[in-house]
Amino acid sequence: MQELKDRIVSEGRVLPGNIIKVDGFLNHRIDCAFMDRIAEEFSKYFDFSKIDLILTAEASGIALAAICALHYGKPMVFAKKAKSDNIEGGLYQSEIFSYTYKKKVTLLVSKDWIHPNDRVLLVDDFLARGEALRGLCEIVYAAGAELVGIGCAIEKGFQGGGDRLREAGINLHSLAIIEKAEPGNIEFRPDEA
Amino acid sequence: MQELKDRIVSEGRVLPGNIIKVDGFLNHRIDCAFMDRIAEEFSKYFDFSKIDLILTAEASGIALAAICALHYGKPMVFAKKAKSDNIEGGLYQSEIFSYTYKKKVTLLVSKDWIHPNDRVLLVDDFLARGEALRGLCEIVYAAGAELVGIGCAIEKGFQGGGDRLREAGINLHSLAIIEKAEPGNIEFRPDEA
Repeated sequence: MQELKDRIVSEGRVLPGNIIKVDGFLNHRIDCAFMDRIAEEFSKYFDFSKIDLILTAEASGIALAAICALHYGKPMVFAKKAKSDNIEGGLYQSEIFSYTYKKKVTLLVSKDWIHPNDRVLLVDDFLARGEALRGLCEIVYAAGAELVGIGCAIEKGFQGGGDRLREAGINLHSLAIIEKAEPGNIEFRPDEA
Repeated sequence: MQELKDRIVSEGRVLPGNIIKVDGFLNHRIDCAFMDRIAEEFSKYFDFSKIDLILTAEASGIALAAICALHYGKPMVFAKKAKSDNIEGGLYQSEIFSYTYKKKVTLLVSKDWIHPNDRVLLVDDFLARGEALRGLCEIVYAAGAELVGIGCAIEKGFQGGGDRLREAGINLHSLAIIEKAEPGNIEFRPDEA
Protein backbone atom coordinates (compact mmCIF):
# COMPACT_ATOMS: atom_id res chain seq x y z
CA MET A 1 0.00 0.00 0.00
CA GLN A 2 1.82 3.07 -1.26
CA GLU A 3 0.38 5.53 1.27
CA LEU A 4 1.51 3.31 4.13
CA LYS A 5 5.04 2.95 2.71
CA ASP A 6 5.25 6.68 2.14
CA ARG A 7 4.29 7.40 5.73
CA ILE A 8 6.74 4.84 7.11
CA VAL A 9 9.49 6.59 5.13
CA SER A 10 8.44 10.14 5.98
CA GLU A 11 7.32 9.70 9.60
CA GLY A 12 8.96 6.49 10.82
CA ARG A 13 12.16 6.46 12.83
CA VAL A 14 14.68 3.65 13.00
CA LEU A 15 16.02 3.01 16.49
CA PRO A 16 18.78 0.68 17.70
CA GLY A 17 17.67 -2.93 17.98
CA ASN A 18 15.80 -2.98 14.68
CA ILE A 19 12.95 -1.01 16.19
CA ILE A 20 10.93 0.99 13.69
CA LYS A 21 8.87 3.65 15.41
CA VAL A 22 5.63 4.58 13.69
CA ASP A 23 3.97 5.80 16.84
CA GLY A 24 2.74 9.02 15.21
CA PHE A 25 0.04 7.30 13.20
CA LEU A 26 -0.14 3.59 14.01
CA ASN A 27 0.47 2.53 17.57
CA HIS A 28 0.48 5.38 20.08
CA ARG A 29 -1.10 8.33 18.30
CA ILE A 30 -3.56 6.79 15.83
CA ASP A 31 -4.63 8.37 12.55
CA CYS A 32 -8.05 6.77 12.55
CA ALA A 33 -9.07 7.97 9.06
CA PHE A 34 -5.89 6.32 7.77
CA MET A 35 -6.77 3.13 9.67
CA ASP A 36 -10.07 3.16 7.77
CA ARG A 37 -8.19 3.31 4.45
CA ILE A 38 -6.01 0.41 5.61
CA ALA A 39 -9.19 -1.51 6.44
CA GLU A 40 -10.50 -0.79 2.93
CA GLU A 41 -7.21 -2.03 1.44
CA PHE A 42 -7.67 -5.41 3.13
CA SER A 43 -10.66 -5.99 0.82
CA LYS A 44 -8.13 -6.65 -1.98
CA TYR A 45 -7.02 -9.76 -0.14
CA PHE A 46 -10.00 -10.99 1.86
CA ASP A 47 -13.67 -11.56 1.08
CA PHE A 48 -15.30 -9.95 4.10
CA SER A 49 -18.70 -11.39 3.20
CA LYS A 50 -17.21 -14.72 4.32
CA ILE A 51 -15.74 -13.52 7.60
CA ASP A 52 -17.66 -13.74 10.88
CA LEU A 53 -15.21 -12.33 13.38
CA ILE A 54 -12.13 -10.12 13.52
CA LEU A 55 -9.65 -11.13 16.21
CA THR A 56 -6.62 -9.19 17.48
CA ALA A 57 -4.49 -8.96 20.62
CA GLU A 58 -4.27 -6.07 23.03
CA ALA A 59 -3.16 -3.36 22.95
CA SER A 60 -1.90 -1.70 19.80
CA GLY A 61 -3.84 -3.94 17.39
CA ILE A 62 -7.18 -2.90 18.86
CA ALA A 63 -7.62 0.43 17.06
CA LEU A 64 -7.05 -0.99 13.57
CA ALA A 65 -9.10 -4.11 14.29
CA ALA A 66 -12.01 -2.06 15.68
CA ILE A 67 -12.06 0.28 12.69
CA CYS A 68 -11.80 -2.71 10.34
CA ALA A 69 -14.71 -4.39 12.14
CA LEU A 70 -16.77 -1.21 11.91
CA HIS A 71 -15.90 -0.82 8.22
CA TYR A 72 -17.20 -4.29 7.36
CA GLY A 73 -19.96 -4.59 9.97
CA LYS A 74 -18.34 -7.43 11.90
CA PRO A 75 -17.81 -8.04 15.61
CA MET A 76 -14.26 -7.72 16.94
CA VAL A 77 -12.66 -9.64 19.79
CA PHE A 78 -9.34 -8.76 21.35
CA ALA A 79 -7.30 -11.33 23.23
CA LYS A 80 -6.33 -10.12 26.68
CA LYS A 81 -2.87 -10.48 28.08
CA ALA A 82 -2.36 -12.19 31.45
CA LYS A 83 -5.16 -12.64 33.92
CA SER A 84 -7.41 -10.00 35.39
CA ASP A 85 -10.28 -10.38 37.83
CA ASN A 86 -12.78 -9.62 35.11
CA ILE A 87 -12.06 -12.82 33.21
CA GLU A 88 -13.07 -15.99 35.02
CA GLY A 89 -12.87 -19.55 33.66
CA GLY A 90 -13.80 -20.79 30.21
CA LEU A 91 -10.82 -19.39 28.35
CA TYR A 92 -8.76 -20.33 25.38
CA GLN A 93 -5.14 -19.62 26.25
CA SER A 94 -1.88 -19.40 24.37
CA GLU A 95 1.50 -18.60 25.80
CA ILE A 96 3.72 -16.34 23.72
CA PHE A 97 7.01 -14.56 24.23
CA SER A 98 6.74 -10.77 24.11
CA TYR A 99 9.95 -9.30 22.68
CA THR A 100 8.60 -5.87 23.50
CA TYR A 101 8.36 -6.66 27.20
CA LYS A 102 10.99 -9.42 27.25
CA LYS A 103 8.79 -11.90 29.09
CA LYS A 104 6.23 -14.63 28.58
CA VAL A 105 2.67 -13.44 28.19
CA THR A 106 -0.52 -15.46 28.05
CA LEU A 107 -3.16 -14.51 25.49
CA LEU A 108 -6.70 -15.18 26.66
CA VAL A 109 -9.99 -15.31 24.76
CA SER A 110 -13.25 -16.25 26.43
CA LYS A 111 -14.92 -19.36 25.01
CA ASP A 112 -18.11 -17.30 24.95
CA TRP A 113 -16.81 -15.17 22.07
CA ILE A 114 -15.22 -17.52 19.55
CA HIS A 115 -17.10 -20.56 18.31
CA PRO A 116 -16.37 -23.67 16.25
CA ASN A 117 -18.01 -22.41 13.09
CA ASP A 118 -16.64 -18.86 13.12
CA ARG A 119 -14.64 -17.79 10.07
CA VAL A 120 -11.96 -15.65 11.70
CA LEU A 121 -9.66 -12.98 10.25
CA LEU A 122 -6.74 -11.92 12.42
CA VAL A 123 -5.85 -8.23 12.18
CA ASP A 124 -2.78 -6.60 13.66
CA ASP A 125 -0.88 -3.36 13.26
CA PHE A 126 2.61 -4.80 13.35
CA LEU A 127 4.25 -8.16 12.66
CA ALA A 128 7.85 -8.70 13.71
CA ARG A 129 8.67 -12.16 15.02
CA GLY A 130 4.99 -13.05 14.84
CA GLU A 131 4.59 -14.34 18.36
CA ALA A 132 1.27 -12.61 19.04
CA LEU A 133 -0.20 -13.82 15.75
CA ARG A 134 1.10 -17.35 16.33
CA GLY A 135 -0.69 -17.29 19.68
CA LEU A 136 -3.90 -16.03 18.11
CA CYS A 137 -3.72 -18.81 15.47
CA GLU A 138 -3.46 -21.36 18.30
CA ILE A 139 -6.56 -19.90 19.91
CA VAL A 140 -8.50 -20.07 16.63
CA TYR A 141 -7.48 -23.71 16.17
CA ALA A 142 -8.27 -24.55 19.81
CA ALA A 143 -11.77 -23.15 19.32
CA GLY A 144 -12.28 -25.28 16.23
CA ALA A 145 -12.89 -22.10 14.26
CA GLU A 146 -11.71 -21.47 10.70
CA LEU A 147 -8.67 -19.24 10.22
CA VAL A 148 -9.43 -17.29 7.04
CA GLY A 149 -6.16 -15.39 7.17
CA ILE A 150 -4.18 -12.56 8.68
CA GLY A 151 -4.29 -8.94 7.63
CA CYS A 152 -1.39 -6.90 8.91
CA ALA A 153 -0.41 -3.27 8.33
CA ILE A 154 3.39 -3.35 8.69
CA GLU A 155 5.60 -6.43 8.65
CA LYS A 156 9.31 -6.51 9.46
CA GLY A 157 10.16 -9.01 6.73
CA PHE A 158 13.77 -9.30 7.80
CA GLN A 159 12.76 -10.82 11.14
CA GLY A 160 11.13 -13.79 9.44
CA GLY A 161 7.98 -14.09 11.53
CA GLY A 162 5.64 -13.44 8.60
CA ASP A 163 7.37 -15.89 6.29
CA ARG A 164 7.16 -18.60 8.94
CA LEU A 165 3.40 -18.08 9.07
CA ARG A 166 3.18 -18.19 5.25
CA GLU A 167 5.23 -21.40 5.17
CA ALA A 168 2.74 -22.87 7.62
CA GLY A 169 0.10 -22.30 4.93
CA ILE A 170 -1.54 -19.24 6.48
CA ASN A 171 -3.09 -16.68 4.14
CA LEU A 172 -1.13 -13.68 5.45
CA HIS A 173 -1.08 -10.30 3.74
CA SER A 174 0.87 -7.33 5.05
CA LEU A 175 0.41 -3.96 3.39
CA ALA A 176 4.04 -2.88 3.79
CA ILE A 177 6.86 -5.39 4.31
CA ILE A 178 10.10 -3.81 5.47
CA GLU A 179 13.19 -5.71 4.32
CA LYS A 180 15.85 -3.32 5.51
CA ALA A 181 15.70 -0.55 8.09
CA GLU A 182 18.62 1.77 8.70
CA PRO A 183 18.38 5.45 9.62
CA GLY A 184 17.59 7.24 6.38
CA ASN A 185 17.20 4.02 4.39
CA ILE A 186 14.08 1.88 4.60
CA GLU A 187 13.60 -0.74 1.88
CA PHE A 188 10.41 -2.63 1.17
CA ARG A 189 9.67 -6.04 -0.30
CA PRO A 190 8.01 -5.62 -3.73
CA ASP A 191 4.20 -5.79 -3.62
CA GLU A 192 2.43 -9.03 -4.38
CA ALA A 193 1.70 -9.48 -8.10
CA MET B 1 -28.56 6.27 26.50
CA GLN B 2 -31.46 3.85 26.47
CA GLU B 3 -29.90 1.31 24.10
CA LEU B 4 -26.85 1.07 26.34
CA LYS B 5 -28.95 0.60 29.48
CA ASP B 6 -31.06 -2.03 27.72
CA ARG B 7 -27.99 -4.00 26.71
CA ILE B 8 -26.47 -3.78 30.19
CA VAL B 9 -29.71 -5.24 31.58
CA SER B 10 -30.16 -7.91 28.90
CA GLU B 11 -26.52 -8.95 28.35
CA GLY B 12 -24.60 -7.85 31.43
CA ARG B 13 -23.82 -10.17 34.30
CA VAL B 14 -23.24 -9.19 37.90
CA LEU B 15 -20.37 -11.08 39.55
CA PRO B 16 -19.18 -11.07 43.16
CA GLY B 17 -17.10 -8.02 44.07
CA ASN B 18 -19.37 -5.55 42.32
CA ILE B 19 -18.05 -6.60 38.91
CA ILE B 20 -20.44 -6.00 36.05
CA LYS B 21 -19.44 -7.99 33.02
CA VAL B 22 -20.36 -6.48 29.70
CA ASP B 23 -17.68 -8.30 27.78
CA GLY B 24 -20.05 -9.39 25.03
CA PHE B 25 -20.31 -5.95 23.48
CA LEU B 26 -18.00 -3.48 25.25
CA ASN B 27 -14.67 -4.75 26.47
CA HIS B 28 -13.71 -8.17 25.14
CA ARG B 29 -16.00 -8.84 22.20
CA ILE B 30 -16.76 -5.40 20.78
CA ASP B 31 -19.92 -4.48 18.89
CA CYS B 32 -18.25 -1.84 16.76
CA ALA B 33 -21.44 -0.55 15.10
CA PHE B 34 -22.80 0.04 18.61
CA MET B 35 -19.57 1.84 19.57
CA ASP B 36 -20.25 4.15 16.62
CA ARG B 37 -23.73 4.93 17.99
CA ILE B 38 -22.18 5.62 21.41
CA ALA B 39 -19.72 7.97 19.68
CA GLU B 40 -22.64 9.75 18.03
CA GLU B 41 -24.39 10.08 21.42
CA PHE B 42 -21.37 11.96 22.81
CA SER B 43 -22.23 14.81 20.43
CA LYS B 44 -25.12 15.68 22.80
CA TYR B 45 -22.56 16.64 25.42
CA PHE B 46 -19.44 17.79 23.59
CA ASP B 47 -18.81 20.14 20.67
CA PHE B 48 -16.41 18.07 18.60
CA SER B 49 -15.58 21.02 16.36
CA LYS B 50 -13.67 22.36 19.38
CA ILE B 51 -11.77 19.17 20.20
CA ASP B 52 -8.29 18.46 18.82
CA LEU B 53 -7.46 15.12 20.33
CA ILE B 54 -9.15 12.09 21.86
CA LEU B 55 -7.17 10.44 24.64
CA THR B 56 -7.77 7.09 26.32
CA ALA B 57 -5.80 4.42 28.19
CA GLU B 58 -4.98 0.93 27.01
CA ALA B 59 -6.51 -1.52 26.60
CA SER B 60 -10.27 -1.70 26.69
CA GLY B 61 -10.85 2.01 26.03
CA ILE B 62 -9.05 1.88 22.71
CA ALA B 63 -11.84 0.47 20.56
CA LEU B 64 -14.42 3.07 21.61
CA ALA B 65 -11.90 5.91 21.46
CA ALA B 66 -10.71 4.87 17.98
CA ILE B 67 -14.23 4.65 16.61
CA CYS B 68 -15.10 7.98 18.24
CA ALA B 69 -11.98 9.55 16.68
CA LEU B 70 -12.91 8.13 13.27
CA HIS B 71 -16.50 9.35 13.66
CA TYR B 72 -15.42 12.94 14.25
CA GLY B 73 -12.23 12.99 12.16
CA LYS B 74 -9.86 13.48 15.10
CA PRO B 75 -6.57 11.83 16.03
CA MET B 76 -6.59 9.45 18.96
CA VAL B 77 -3.81 8.76 21.46
CA PHE B 78 -3.82 5.93 23.96
CA ALA B 79 -1.73 6.06 27.10
CA LYS B 80 0.45 2.99 27.47
CA LYS B 81 0.79 1.10 30.71
CA ALA B 82 4.26 0.46 32.16
CA LYS B 83 7.39 0.71 30.10
CA SER B 84 8.20 -1.08 26.89
CA ASP B 85 11.31 -0.85 24.74
CA ASN B 86 9.38 1.00 22.08
CA ILE B 87 8.90 4.09 24.24
CA GLU B 88 12.06 5.98 25.08
CA GLY B 89 12.33 9.29 26.96
CA GLY B 90 10.13 12.34 26.62
CA LEU B 91 7.10 11.00 28.40
CA TYR B 92 4.30 12.36 30.51
CA GLN B 93 3.70 9.88 33.30
CA SER B 94 1.03 9.29 35.89
CA GLU B 95 0.94 6.56 38.48
CA ILE B 96 -2.44 4.98 39.14
CA PHE B 97 -3.73 2.00 41.08
CA SER B 98 -5.31 -0.67 38.92
CA TYR B 99 -8.09 -2.39 40.87
CA THR B 100 -8.41 -4.84 37.98
CA TYR B 101 -4.83 -6.01 38.35
CA LYS B 102 -4.42 -5.06 42.05
CA LYS B 103 -1.17 -3.21 41.49
CA LYS B 104 0.28 0.16 40.65
CA VAL B 105 0.48 0.95 36.96
CA THR B 106 2.16 3.88 35.25
CA LEU B 107 0.34 5.57 32.38
CA LEU B 108 2.66 6.96 29.71
CA VAL B 109 2.05 9.40 26.87
CA SER B 110 4.84 10.63 24.63
CA LYS B 111 5.39 14.39 24.71
CA ASP B 112 5.40 14.18 20.91
CA TRP B 113 1.66 13.51 20.78
CA ILE B 114 0.03 15.91 23.24
CA HIS B 115 0.78 19.61 23.11
CA PRO B 116 0.08 22.70 25.23
CA ASN B 117 -2.68 24.03 23.02
CA ASP B 118 -4.53 20.77 22.39
CA ARG B 119 -8.18 20.67 23.41
CA VAL B 120 -8.48 17.11 24.73
CA LEU B 121 -11.49 14.88 25.29
CA LEU B 122 -10.93 11.76 27.36
CA VAL B 123 -12.95 8.75 26.25
CA ASP B 124 -13.26 5.47 28.12
CA ASP B 125 -15.51 2.45 28.08
CA PHE B 126 -15.86 2.04 31.82
CA LEU B 127 -15.53 4.22 34.90
CA ALA B 128 -15.45 2.59 38.33
CA ARG B 129 -13.10 4.17 40.87
CA GLY B 130 -11.85 6.47 38.13
CA GLU B 131 -8.13 5.84 38.62
CA ALA B 132 -7.31 5.57 34.91
CA LEU B 133 -9.21 8.77 34.12
CA ARG B 134 -7.61 10.59 37.06
CA GLY B 135 -4.23 9.60 35.63
CA LEU B 136 -5.17 10.78 32.16
CA CYS B 137 -6.32 14.14 33.61
CA GLU B 138 -2.91 14.52 35.25
CA ILE B 139 -1.21 13.90 31.92
CA VAL B 140 -3.40 16.50 30.18
CA TYR B 141 -2.58 19.05 32.89
CA ALA B 142 1.14 18.18 32.80
CA ALA B 143 1.14 18.80 29.06
CA GLY B 144 -0.47 22.22 29.56
CA ALA B 145 -3.31 21.05 27.32
CA GLU B 146 -6.97 21.91 27.85
CA LEU B 147 -9.21 19.21 29.32
CA VAL B 148 -12.53 19.66 27.52
CA GLY B 149 -14.18 16.81 29.36
CA ILE B 150 -14.64 13.07 29.72
CA GLY B 151 -17.03 10.92 27.73
CA CYS B 152 -17.63 7.52 29.25
CA ALA B 153 -19.91 4.69 28.23
CA ILE B 154 -20.69 2.97 31.54
CA GLU B 155 -20.10 4.38 35.02
CA LYS B 156 -20.46 2.50 38.26
CA GLY B 157 -21.99 5.41 40.14
CA PHE B 158 -22.04 3.56 43.48
CA GLN B 159 -18.22 3.46 43.52
CA GLY B 160 -17.97 7.24 43.53
CA GLY B 161 -15.13 7.72 41.06
CA GLY B 162 -17.22 9.68 38.59
CA ASP B 163 -18.71 11.97 41.21
CA ARG B 164 -15.23 12.75 42.54
CA LEU B 165 -14.22 13.87 39.05
CA ARG B 166 -17.41 15.98 38.74
CA GLU B 167 -16.74 17.58 42.12
CA ALA B 168 -13.28 18.52 40.83
CA GLY B 169 -15.06 20.54 38.14
CA ILE B 170 -14.53 18.11 35.27
CA ASN B 171 -17.15 18.02 32.54
CA LEU B 172 -17.85 14.29 32.76
CA HIS B 173 -20.73 12.59 30.98
CA SER B 174 -21.43 8.88 31.24
CA LEU B 175 -24.12 7.38 29.04
CA ALA B 176 -25.28 4.85 31.64
CA ILE B 177 -24.63 5.29 35.37
CA ILE B 178 -25.26 2.16 37.41
CA GLU B 179 -26.35 2.88 40.98
CA LYS B 180 -27.12 -0.64 42.09
CA ALA B 181 -26.01 -3.96 40.69
CA GLU B 182 -27.32 -7.23 42.04
CA PRO B 183 -27.97 -10.38 40.04
CA GLY B 184 -31.28 -9.76 38.26
CA ASN B 185 -31.54 -6.16 39.49
CA ILE B 186 -29.56 -3.35 37.88
CA GLU B 187 -30.66 0.20 38.69
CA PHE B 188 -29.53 3.33 36.87
CA ARG B 189 -29.16 6.95 37.90
CA PRO B 190 -31.79 9.06 36.08
CA ASP B 191 -30.52 10.73 32.90
CA GLU B 192 -29.30 14.32 33.01
CA ALA B 193 -32.09 16.81 32.43
